[in-house]
Amino acid sequence: MASAHLEDLLTALRFRSISTDSRYTADVLANAEWLAARLKADGLQVQMHPTARHPIVTARNIHRAGRPTVMIYGHYDVQPVDPVEQWQSDPFQPRIENGRIYARGSTDNKGQHMAHLCGLSDTLRAHGDLPVNLIFLLEGEEEIGSPNLEPFLQEQRANLACDIIAISDTGMVAAGVPTFTYGLRGIACVEVTVHGPTIDLHSGIFGGSVANPNTILSRLVATVHDAEGRIAIEGLYDAVRPVQAWEREAWSKLPGGAAETLALTGVPALFGEPGYTDHERRWARPTAEVNGIGGGYQGEGSKTVIPRSAFAKFSFRLVPDQDPADILKKVEAHFARYCPPTVRLEIKIGHSGAPYAMDPNSKFGVAARRALETTFSKPTALIREGGSIPIVQSFREVLGAETLLLGLALPDCQAHAPNENFPLENFEAGIRLNQHLLEALASA
Amino acid sequence: MASAHLEDLLTALRFRSISTDSRYTADVLANAEWLAARLKADGLQVQMHPTARHPIVTARNIHRAGRPTVMIYGHYDVQPVDPVEQWQSDPFQPRIENGRIYARGSTDNKGQHMAHLCGLSDTLRAHGDLPVNLIFLLEGEEEIGSPNLEPFLQEQRANLACDIIAISDTGMVAAGVPTFTYGLRGIACVEVTVHGPTIDLHSGIFGGSVANPNTILSRLVATVHDAEGRIAIEGLYDAVRPVQAWEREAWSKLPGGAAETLALTGVPALFGEPGYTDHERRWARPTAEVNGIGGGYQGEGSKTVIPRSAFAKFSFRLVPDQDPADILKKVEAHFARYCPPTVRLEIKIGHSGAPYAMDPNSKFGVAARRALETTFSKPTALIREGGSIPIVQSFREVLGAETLLLGLALPDCQAHAPNENFPLENFEAGIRLNQHLLEALASA
Repeated sequence: MASAHLEDLLTALRFRSISTDSRYTADVLANAEWLAARLKADGLQVQMHPTARHPIVTARNIHRAGRPTVMIYGHYDVQPVDPVEQWQSDPFQPRIENGRIYARGSTDNKGQHMAHLCGLSDTLRAHGDLPVNLIFLLEGEEEIGSPNLEPFLQEQRANLACDIIAISDTGMVAAGVPTFTYGLRGIACVEVTVHGPTIDLHSGIFGGSVANPNTILSRLVATVHDAEGRIAIEGLYDAVRPVQAWEREAWSKLPGGAAETLALTGVPALFGEPGYTDHERRWARPTAEVNGIGGGYQGEGSKTVIPRSAFAKFSFRLVPDQDPADILKKVEAHFARYCPPTVRLEIKIGHSGAPYAMDPNSKFGVAARRALETTFSKPTALIREGGSIPIVQSFREVLGAETLLLGLALPDCQAHAPNENFPLENFEAGIRLNQHLLEALASA
Repeated sequence: MASAHLEDLLTALRFRSISTDSRYTADVLANAEWLAARLKADGLQVQMHPTARHPIVTARNIHRAGRPTVMIYGHYDVQPVDPVEQWQSDPFQPRIENGRIYARGSTDNKGQHMAHLCGLSDTLRAHGDLPVNLIFLLEGEEEIGSPNLEPFLQEQRANLACDIIAISDTGMVAAGVPTFTYGLRGIACVEVTVHGPTIDLHSGIFGGSVANPNTILSRLVATVHDAEGRIAIEGLYDAVRPVQAWEREAWSKLPGGAAETLALTGVPALFGEPGYTDHERRWARPTAEVNGIGGGYQGEGSKTVIPRSAFAKFSFRLVPDQDPADILKKVEAHFARYCPPTVRLEIKIGHSGAPYAMDPNSKFGVAARRALETTFSKPTALIREGGSIPIVQSFREVLGAETLLLGLALPDCQAHAPNENFPLENFEAGIRLNQHLLEALASA
């Protein structure tokens, strides 16, 4: 790997591009401006597109007739760093140890889109052009649900017309195993707040006479699953596409699965929907998770209050053919039905995105699998993933193009968590993959 | 009221005697020294007792055989003043408006113990002595849980031997209604933490395969009550002394109750154990309250994690004849029983205090009620209170004496809150109460 490539990655990782937190708006912008300058230096035509929040950067070569138009997508924004005290080094001062680079965004998504960027640089430097018509699109709002991407796609639909899209923002089933992801879970976020007294009450004076928002909220959360782990919201499973026989068969032979999940997570025992394997539970079944819960005294020791309110932040992962709007209606109806009249219920709808599935045997699918196999010299694993990339659905709906998900993250890369990291060998493989991919797509 | 008494109260209120905050240590000491000098000037024998933190002041007359020894307890320390911006005037520059004096500590507890002090002065000036053997004990650590009081009682057990104790630090059911509190709830605090994965996990990648600590914790909290609001912990009610017929009858005629609780708390509807009135629920029935709950992402918007852990801070209010140690065992057994093997359960035991009840028909009880009725010219309300005053239990255990709780605070005196205040008429009534009380106890 050229040391200039590593320098580029280190520079990218130093930007505190936390999109959800308005204190970092200038850092997000600085990252976008640096990317724009970097791509311009490679001779690409670069544009910064302002949005209501964080800009979108596009770069393209001169398009010619007779070759496919390929869009490569990445996002330069990152997740917040809390709990920051659990990091072994500053999340924005990248540290290299045992072949891995530790920094917020290293795997999600800077390490991966910077690999593509460096791959493009190498090809442009070697050949003066790329084998395809390229649109490189980098957004700064993926971690907050890409609110301005779809409007941008709508508005720029003609300029962004393409035959196929490639994204490296998913995982590999194991180190060195090329992995093609043909399905993703969708997402629907809901914040439930239970409001009780107008102020925090003394729990000695008033305890016994009023419903405690912490208790009511907990009881509501407890209605969301049955004791075995199935979601207990009426109609939630109605549209779920069953796991196919060939998937069950193929996935059972993959590395990873229950033993790996147990080791990676460190939980005392796994837990999930009865009748499904670990891969099936994470890739092909819906979930309801409480990402955050809070109410009342949070400090050390005790403070004897009945809090004025309590909240739970839910995200539901959805699978084909569940529709987020339909699920959100069912979720709202569920909480309205179970919330007692002793508190006031507030439901805030957050971001959502449909689940995704494409055909891995389409011509571009086959080409991408060939590029993966050339890069890694191994057969490709065909998988789905549990995460959500709602924009893939937007690409399909607005641009009419399918997306190739060619991820480079490993199961222990700690995306969204403290000590996020990315193997340098995956960064290097990504640079080569970009080159093989554009060649394979050009001849598909 | 003599203007000297008001001057004394104003002086006491100007001391910034915030016991929890070490920046105010000198102010706490200054208050104690002023009290000692003030009591010495009345001809009492005064001692300052240093402790590990803030001193205890005692004052006594010359004790003679053949008359009861009465301890009067008060505390000269106060709560912090945050949020100070919600005060309408400086918390330590007392302001008089519409017959109320506004200052931190005005109701809790300076207005009340200064009334006793001024009552003693009047009697001593008029008669040269008191009708009883007096021990006036003023501590400076009540607002931080009286850590040095019980050791002091143990050490000074012989010097502090007494027949009865009186404290004015509780409430009156309404303005002008003399109120005798003969019972208090106890407390037992427990923090329950559920540990799952070793780090926060991406809820897309791992959701479905591991138990979510927020969900498990919520399900545990939900096991603590049944749907109607009874505590569902096995054996928790075993030792509960039933509400007596005369209590039910007497309390039903008191001011306050459900309508007042609804207005004071602002909840949409009251909620509590079936079969009990508002007074009964708050004064004579145990409760299980979650004072704080937390796990996972606490910020704005969403962060899609499965958190590594989640906690709930419980306080149980206990009633006669529940034993905190026994209840804590039952609580631990409950959580151990309901916690699934998919997480690791941690239980931290916090502070506890036994419930309290004395006989309002004992000879000193009857005497105190007579003093209240003479002072206020109205029948005395006999109540219990929902809060906990652990020192009352210490007095019983170490000194073997019961405590008369003769509170002068009104429901809207804002103890512990901004704009704390105390009616001047209650201060004046307290001065007279002290005189009537000592007379009544002398002839009991």
